Amino acid sequence: MVLEDRWLLPEGVDEVLPPQAERLEALRRTILDLFHGWGYDLVVPPLIEYLESLLTGAGHDLDLQTFKLTDQLTGRLMGVRADMTPQVARIDAHRLRRDAPTRLCYLGPVLHTLPNAFAGSRNPFQIGAELYGHRGLESDVEVMCLMLDTLAAAGFDSVLLDLGHMAIFRGLSRQAALDRDQESTLFDALQRKACPEINRYLNDWSIAPRAAGLMRALPALNGGESILAQAQEIFAGASQSVIEALADLREIARLLAARAPAVELHFDLAELRGYHYHTGVMFAAYVPGQGQALAKGGRYDDIGRVFGRARPATGFSTDLKLLVGSGAAAGAAQDAVFAPWSEDVRLAAAVAELRRGGRRVVYALPGQAGGAPEIGCNKMLSCIDGQWQMTDVPQG
Amino acid sequence: MVLEDRWLLPEGVDEVLPPQAERLEALRRTILDLFHGWGYDLVVPPLIEYLESLLTGAGHDLDLQTFKLTDQLTGRLMGVRADMTPQVARIDAHRLRRDAPTRLCYLGPVLHTLPNAFAGSRNPFQIGAELYGHRGLESDVEVMCLMLDTLAAAGFDSVLLDLGHMAIFRGLSRQAALDRDQESTLFDALQRKACPEINRYLNDWSIAPRAAGLMRALPALNGGESILAQAQEIFAGASQSVIEALADLREIARLLAARAPAVELHFDLAELRGYHYHTGVMFAAYVPGQGQALAKGGRYDDIGRVFGRARPATGFSTDLKLLVGSGAAAGAAQDAVFAPWSEDVRLAAAVAELRRGGRRVVYALPGQAGGAPEIGCNKMLSCIDGQWQMTDVPQG
Repeated sequence: MVLEDRWLLPEGVDEVLPPQAERLEALRRTILDLFHGWGYDLVVPPLIEYLESLLTGAGHDLDLQTFKLTDQLTGRLMGVRADMTPQVARIDAHRLRRDAPTRLCYLGPVLHTLPNAFAGSRNPFQIGAELYGHRGLESDVEVMCLMLDTLAAAGFDSVLLDLGHMAIFRGLSRQAALDRDQESTLFDALQRKACPEINRYLNDWSIAPRAAGLMRALPALNGGESILAQAQEIFAGASQSVIEALADLREIARLLAARAPAVELHFDLAELRGYHYHTGVMFAAYVPGQGQALAKGGRYDDIGRVFGRARPATGFSTDLKLLVGSGAAAGAAQDAVFAPWSEDVRLAAAVAELRRGGRRVVYALPGQAGGAPEIGCNKMLSCIDGQWQMTDVPQG
Repeated sequence: MVLEDRWLLPEGVDEVLPPQAERLEALRRTILDLFHGWGYDLVVPPLIEYLESLLTGAGHDLDLQTFKLTDQLTGRLMGVRADMTPQVARIDAHRLRRDAPTRLCYLGPVLHTLPNAFAGSRNPFQIGAELYGHRGLESDVEVMCLMLDTLAAAGFDSVLLDLGHMAIFRGLSRQAALDRDQESTLFDALQRKACPEINRYLNDWSIAPRAAGLMRALPALNGGESILAQAQEIFAGASQSVIEALADLREIARLLAARAPAVELHFDLAELRGYHYHTGVMFAAYVPGQGQALAKGGRYDDIGRVFGRARPATGFSTDLKLLVGSGAAAGAAQDAVFAPWSEDVRLAAAVAELRRGGRRVVYALPGQAGGAPEIGCNKMLSCIDGQWQMTDVPQG
């Protein structure tokens, strides 16, 4: 074993040190308080579950992303969560079993077997909010507004919101009579906007010209709100579900114009990111100069079915480490008081009093290396005329 | 796959739901603020590391407790942390590299392959504090006092502090000329206070009568401070390190009498819990009616050596879920405001204003199941004379 690389972390695995960790904690509290204020209750799902619970309703992507472990008690396969959303859906469907709309939030580390293509992280710190039990667009809009407020709390005021709708691709696939493999192949090519590839598939599979034409139109349908009118014309002859999905996007744009007038909207009818569990509107937030989405979410109405309760659901999540790393918020200067080592009980009382008042007080230890400045203290406690008093640390 | 058990969590794996999760979060903040006030900086180590980093300086126990994963990028073995202390020691030794005393704190989920014998949990939520770079007993006492304050913050005022010292057993082992296997076998028997077994080993191995006699005395040496005087007599002829360890325990008792006069002290010279990385004083906190230690810690001076820096170290940790589960603190009654669904911008402004003021406001969603009481609201916003005003939710 090579001693020199003992301290190396695996590629794509990172940790947070002082003072960045303090900022992470502060933002964590701000966001959880925001969630609380909006009525979202905190849940804390476990790091591991049986694999079939974690991969519920999800596609192959999430399976590949999930580290597998063997349960020594039962021999069954467990997974380390790669995404907390299916866990929270299980909690809603099986543990809480409410009929009224249920608002839940969560946060914690997740693990990915391979680094994400953009950020390169295998251990994001996922934080998100989910709203269960309501099928209307109003709940999607609530979740989008909460996402925008979350990003604003992290210092991102100028956000571009990218919107898509899973039902458009699903409706066109049905219309083109694609089988499951074909749908999956085309989905993949659409994600990459690989137009020549898409054309080749549609030809090879002998898709009816009209259905193929609608599918071919998808990658170009991205831009401002005007593309919705364009899509409405192009998809006039498409199935009802496609036409309804377009109407959903128009209604969402109208509601957002009132609730979040500052946000810039962008529509992309071929962009279908995520873990394949989405069923309705999908959205992602971008900021200038960053290719990766800062936060994303969408509607996923079917996910609770395997737990015996197919509740409507919509939600979003983000990576707290990404928000802190990208954020402009500077750390506040440390303000700490140095206390000499002493057995004087009056000093102990003075220290306890300062700490109760919210001050940071650090004791010297007999014979320690370094003094007040080396341990980050700008004030000190000194005994003056028999009284412990706070003074400035002498410059030097 | 059986649908009915899809929602079952593996044995010994649990999750925290509302309203308990809110209490967990509140206690988490209280404890981190306490740590901050004492000068402990937060660090956030990753869930996984290469196995040799995680098992540094530790014995076989930790290895057995650690889930193993293969890194798909390198084929190397990684582990999911079963204990965060070696991670924090790595951060002190390799990442921070300070000479002055370094105070670090941490928290997060850890995983154990098998349930703990007492609590039965495989996914504790570890929270702890470590002090690096000081060899004296004053740093041990600081960490013990911080542990007691942590427990007091969680509602445990009446604590029994159990103290031991690793150097006593180590010194007696050397005196008895035990090899590594014998030391490990005897260690295990001592943990269980299995006296007949201990006698048999000492006879079988033909340990010199005087050294064997000292070792045999260990299990009986537990009780109040008086057993230290007793031990001093019995171990008068033991090696210097044993005599110094006893002096350490006496000095710690003296310092604690001034700093934490309310705590009851108990000494147990054979109790050597932990992951075998401890080298000096060891301690654990108990409360009446609970067999399992609520928190524990000790000195482990050698752990940073493999990272190129053998810093003195002392610290403690506890399981946040255990503290919340055992704590008497009741959850505060929910106080929330129900807002009807409306596109009135004055309502949106009233909601935003209430939320900024720290109120929890939950929107109704068109056609939702249930009203204000079903989603936990005791107040509501009503439009009275064209003004949005907060009123009580009618009883019914």
